Amino acid sequence: MDIRLYLDRKREEVDRFLDSVVPDTKLAPTTLHEAIRYSLFAGGKRIRPILAIAAAEAVRTPPQAILPVASSLELIHTYSLIHDDLPAMDNDDYRRGKLTNHKVYGEAMAILAGDALLTLAFDLCSNSDLVKGLDPVRQVQLIHELAVGAGNLGMVGGQVLDIQAENKDIDLATLQTIHKHKTGMLIRAAVRMGAIVSSATPAQLDDLSGYAEDVGLAFQIADDVLNVTGTREELGKNPNTDVQRGKKTYPTFYGVEGARGLAEQCTKRAISRLERFDVKADPLRALAEYITARRS
Amino acid sequence: MDIRLYLDRKREEVDRFLDSVVPDTKLAPTTLHEAIRYSLFAGGKRIRPILAIAAAEAVRTPPQAILPVASSLELIHTYSLIHDDLPAMDNDDYRRGKLTNHKVYGEAMAILAGDALLTLAFDLCSNSDLVKGLDPVRQVQLIHELAVGAGNLGMVGGQVLDIQAENKDIDLATLQTIHKHKTGMLIRAAVRMGAIVSSATPAQLDDLSGYAEDVGLAFQIADDVLNVTGTREELGKNPNTDVQRGKKTYPTFYGVEGARGLAEQCTKRAISRLERFDVKADPLRALAEYITARRS
Repeated sequence: MDIRLYLDRKREEVDRFLDSVVPDTKLAPTTLHEAIRYSLFAGGKRIRPILAIAAAEAVRTPPQAILPVASSLELIHTYSLIHDDLPAMDNDDYRRGKLTNHKVYGEAMAILAGDALLTLAFDLCSNSDLVKGLDPVRQVQLIHELAVGAGNLGMVGGQVLDIQAENKDIDLATLQTIHKHKTGMLIRAAVRMGAIVSSATPAQLDDLSGYAEDVGLAFQIADDVLNVTGTREELGKNPNTDVQRGKKTYPTFYGVEGARGLAEQCTKRAISRLERFDVKADPLRALAEYITARRS
Repeated sequence: MDIRLYLDRKREEVDRFLDSVVPDTKLAPTTLHEAIRYSLFAGGKRIRPILAIAAAEAVRTPPQAILPVASSLELIHTYSLIHDDLPAMDNDDYRRGKLTNHKVYGEAMAILAGDALLTLAFDLCSNSDLVKGLDPVRQVQLIHELAVGAGNLGMVGGQVLDIQAENKDIDLATLQTIHKHKTGMLIRAAVRMGAIVSSATPAQLDDLSGYAEDVGLAFQIADDVLNVTGTREELGKNPNTDVQRGKKTYPTFYGVEGARGLAEQCTKRAISRLERFDVKADPLRALAEYITARRS
């Protein structure tokens, strides 16, 4: 299958949906909505929503509810980038080739835009007009997956561990724990949420969760490698920031080639988790390959 | 009725429940959970949870689900205080007589503790083990109330307007819009969420929403008055900060006595909205009086 075509098509669907539900910049408070849209439509690849959609499609043709559910993941992801970039956190000036949110709107607005995006994710998932035709028991389950993946034992917890590890001599196990939480838990939530929308059986949900864990790890290793090997143009931000910040990453432990090999192993293992799925899981398989091979 | 006894009893219930569901400080990431608990158990009055409980009781004896639902409001309120106190926002060093979160744990951890608390609120409301025996349609509705009350068109939106109004010559209508969103929308959500837990009829929900709007306004006016008249001991923070920041408040427009009179009018109107409720709404009536008369 042509994964680039698939990615383009799904990204457009998600973008169109997000554009239709996120308040436009004419609605008060206008600056807040400008700040939200500035980062939300900054050229994100929509990997998490697309993983959710592809997981849902692996089970069956998903109901319309997949779009709000998948899009809520991008709201969470975007808020996390805005807050991560703040001076008190990573203090980044550029993201995806554009000035970071706080560089344009100021720190206070960036904090609030992040808070609003995080809240909007739950607004979207609990909006009964948007999430139509879904069993409300499943809808509650989805919201819980999102909260757990994004929260203190998920993404936020990982961000805390990541900050605490800067300039420290951490071991590989600690690095894995950081990544598992910071990136892995939201990717896992994405895949599981897609599966839940499509009423996956417990066995299917298990297989897809395993897939998500391996893909999440591959994703993070690939990110670490790109931070070393990517150019400013490819990354849309300065390369090699991890080394500059004294951050230990997969290349620190395995070298660039070793880390690449590890990412490929994760990809293979992810794909092997899909054995019991038919061709409908081909986008998920291609996504696993794409995530390791991408250049940005 | 003895409103102080009622407040004490309910506050203890909410505190006990929060203590049982919020990760303890031994669980990793330990510093995150310390920072969360530092602000969550800093002596808050639990007004929002208690409003939710009292609204639920006004309709009928509420199911057990009222505790997680009511407590989620305190998680949202606490996150908003942590983020509001940040140097980029109000830059406050003290809150409830204690150093603010970022003064103890640093800015990065305070931002993340706020993010985690916000997410945890939705975790709590969507946790099916905690929210037992509630129709899942209502559970989704509750989550949506919380998201709308806390989000870009609710509390966060109000905070944006508040920041934008500093040192500006705003009129009374603008002040009202700020308050309606910054404080009013979450109080409204609290009362409505309580009513929804108790399966209120649409007419009851309407009456209670009206009550909440008046109580929210009374609450904010009383807060503005306290900022002028309260002592450092009563407030647990420096008094008169609004004037120092060039913030226009109700006393700016009406004087202290005028503002007090206005708060009392709101209280009376709030109580009149409960005409169709019997003695079960007495705590709500007493709460409306308490909110205007409180000294801290």
